[in-house]
Amino acid sequence: MRRSRYFLPTLKETPAEAQIVSHRLMLRAGLVRQHAAGIYNWLPMGYRVLDNIKRIVEQEQDRTGAIEILMPTIQSAEFWKESGRYEDYGREMLRITDRHEREMLYGPTNEEAVTDIVRQTVKSYKDLPLNLYHIQWKFRDEVRPRFGVMRGREFLMKDGYSFDLDEEAGRRAYHKMFVSYLKTFQRLGLKAIPMRAETGPIGGNLSHEFLILAETGESQVFCHRSLLEKSIPEDVDYDADLEPVVADWTGVYAATDEMHDAAKEAELGDDLITARGIEVGHIFFFNTKYSAPMKAEVVGPDGATGPLYMGSYGIGVSRLVGAIIEASHDEAGIIWPESVAPFRVGLINLKVGDAATDNAAGDLYRRLQAAGVTVLYDDRDERAGVKFADMDLIGLPWQVIVGPKGVAAGQVEVKNRRTGEREEMPLAGVVARFASSH
Amino acid sequence: MRRSRYFLPTLKETPAEAQIVSHRLMLRAGLVRQHAAGIYNWLPMGYRVLDNIKRIVEQEQDRTGAIEILMPTIQSAEFWKESGRYEDYGREMLRITDRHEREMLYGPTNEEAVTDIVRQTVKSYKDLPLNLYHIQWKFRDEVRPRFGVMRGREFLMKDGYSFDLDEEAGRRAYHKMFVSYLKTFQRLGLKAIPMRAETGPIGGNLSHEFLILAETGESQVFCHRSLLEKSIPEDVDYDADLEPVVADWTGVYAATDEMHDAAKEAELGDDLITARGIEVGHIFFFNTKYSAPMKAEVVGPDGATGPLYMGSYGIGVSRLVGAIIEASHDEAGIIWPESVAPFRVGLINLKVGDAATDNAAGDLYRRLQAAGVTVLYDDRDERAGVKFADMDLIGLPWQVIVGPKGVAAGQVEVKNRRTGEREEMPLAGVVARFASSH
Repeated sequence: MRRSRYFLPTLKETPAEAQIVSHRLMLRAGLVRQHAAGIYNWLPMGYRVLDNIKRIVEQEQDRTGAIEILMPTIQSAEFWKESGRYEDYGREMLRITDRHEREMLYGPTNEEAVTDIVRQTVKSYKDLPLNLYHIQWKFRDEVRPRFGVMRGREFLMKDGYSFDLDEEAGRRAYHKMFVSYLKTFQRLGLKAIPMRAETGPIGGNLSHEFLILAETGESQVFCHRSLLEKSIPEDVDYDADLEPVVADWTGVYAATDEMHDAAKEAELGDDLITARGIEVGHIFFFNTKYSAPMKAEVVGPDGATGPLYMGSYGIGVSRLVGAIIEASHDEAGIIWPESVAPFRVGLINLKVGDAATDNAAGDLYRRLQAAGVTVLYDDRDERAGVKFADMDLIGLPWQVIVGPKGVAAGQVEVKNRRTGEREEMPLAGVVARFASSH
Repeated sequence: MRRSRYFLPTLKETPAEAQIVSHRLMLRAGLVRQHAAGIYNWLPMGYRVLDNIKRIVEQEQDRTGAIEILMPTIQSAEFWKESGRYEDYGREMLRITDRHEREMLYGPTNEEAVTDIVRQTVKSYKDLPLNLYHIQWKFRDEVRPRFGVMRGREFLMKDGYSFDLDEEAGRRAYHKMFVSYLKTFQRLGLKAIPMRAETGPIGGNLSHEFLILAETGESQVFCHRSLLEKSIPEDVDYDADLEPVVADWTGVYAATDEMHDAAKEAELGDDLITARGIEVGHIFFFNTKYSAPMKAEVVGPDGATGPLYMGSYGIGVSRLVGAIIEASHDEAGIIWPESVAPFRVGLINLKVGDAATDNAAGDLYRRLQAAGVTVLYDDRDERAGVKFADMDLIGLPWQVIVGPKGVAAGQVEVKNRRTGEREEMPLAGVVARFASSH
């Protein structure tokens, strides 16, 4: 993409309303603009990041055998009355009356909607296990929306729902999601730590939150130091029993403020990390809480009919854009992990109008694109200082800097945004360098 | 995808509520399920088709230089008051009051929202031309939603907005979209015909609808026979002047009922086709209708400040799923064009449980997938007749049929869903056949 033809309105000043670094940087780097309180427009580069995150979430869900659907944003209140949550949910639910005076709502979550689909279509244990997910906009009418997309009102969420014959099979589904969430966050360049959690308005008695550590986290968290070193292998066999993997992660102490046991502080001593955490995922297993009142039942192998055992699994897709920035930035701006970066390479032409530099940079731009490398080419007639500052601000992983002296010598400079390392390399080698290593 | 692990609830009976063929087939083929009047769940296969259409629309928009963003579904009423449309829009607008008693609405279209973005960010003619589009859910509270996704209340639309310095540049933007729409519909396997149209609540005095011909179309249309033979070349140069291409298409008679000139009937005689049409796209050029009241202005090369010239461009993405089925089906079911098919190949195992057949079909399934071919593998233990009927109903372009006799002879049968042609071919040749021809 040529910057001169792109829509990337960066800001020099920090907007006064932004209290946390991700909000400031998202506005300054031209990723979002506010439409109304807690409601955002995603500008082109923000949309690319959002879409990259969405795709990784989809791939990791698909690997587990979960199947993507899409439920609507507007729901009928009737299903929420069946489950008993309509009155309970409170003022965060955006309630709507349509032209025929029917009670509707903007879905804050989809347990009822998906249970309605399944009770209409699934009749036998032979159709199980089943895990349906979707990535759809939700609305929660927060009383004080703040922190940009981190606590907005309209937000994009992946929510999935598992349906099983009995509690044991339901727990297997829960373990699959537990492991796949760790893998998803790992691919997003995040270190997420699972912690036992309260179940709140979703219900049930088994639940984990996934939190990443960042200074601006909304909650205090406590965990054993060793959790920061753990990782999940690239190839997980989701047909295997994943209980041991889950036990390995949950056998080490980790708790949010609400669940924290103060006695652990003396016990763990220096091994205890106390930090702020940002919730990026939350999983629940709630047995038959929705299936029983809504009569989502199947016939088992013994011929008996019984309610389905369900879990639900959420990832805050739009919130992750902010969370990744909270976890990965410096004084100069954002530092995108390669997996979600809006472009992999930022190409800087230091002397627009100089024929040799224009030719070299233009040629590099075309050849990088032909090799499948995503490039933002800053071809604007601006001072070098402006271009450097802008490129650091928007945080693409690699900068390729083309100037007249380098071109005369057949050289360009390559800068790693994260480490700041700079390297001179031959112009002729640039495409191979980026095309081969991803 | 193995059918035994997929979620594809087909129906044998035709649901009574469905009046038109696309609605019937979308329910029967398990593409959608109704959530509430005019509001649908997209089941896995329906979601795949929707996503394929979305991707083609994105690719064709990007080629023109239009840039993708994402605006929210919930809008503030304040912008609609600025443009003067808030009171005019009528009861199709879903009006909402949030917890702070602020007037909000579920966007039926986005002229105001995008104009607000542009007036905050674009100040100079140097930032033009600009065309921003998004693909987002819309809501129109139809008094009588019907025909499934063809006239639903919640629907997915691509809407784009062009911003230019003057009327002439604005018309160039309009011509680009005119041509790219023809190309988009062509890639979707549709023959769309542009017709001069009324501008309605969007406004302006230049507008074209794009209609496809189908018996169940909502409006009567008239056009010269030659339009059915026209096509758009694969490589369009969007930097060139496209006025001659537009003139070529609009120089031949085509009109909706509202705009029809009865005198043309005698004049054109046998060359006049009278048919029913389904609207799949609509483009508008409305000068400064929104930019003037909302003060979206730029400084021109002469230093003078003036309002932007705008157009808007819509494609009914979710409606297209129904429209494609209206245009492409037979007695047995849907016939998907290859470009949007949920899977390219349907693989039928005629004798599940027979080791040789299972091995041959399973091996073919894995090798087709490894070659990048999307495959739905019917591995259910069902009668052949059930599998054939189901596969015809869901309409994948190719069926590969593996049975014990064929396997013994090293042969499979390949059926073209559209033509019904069947061909015996060597098992060993199947992967190369589909991997090489797309």
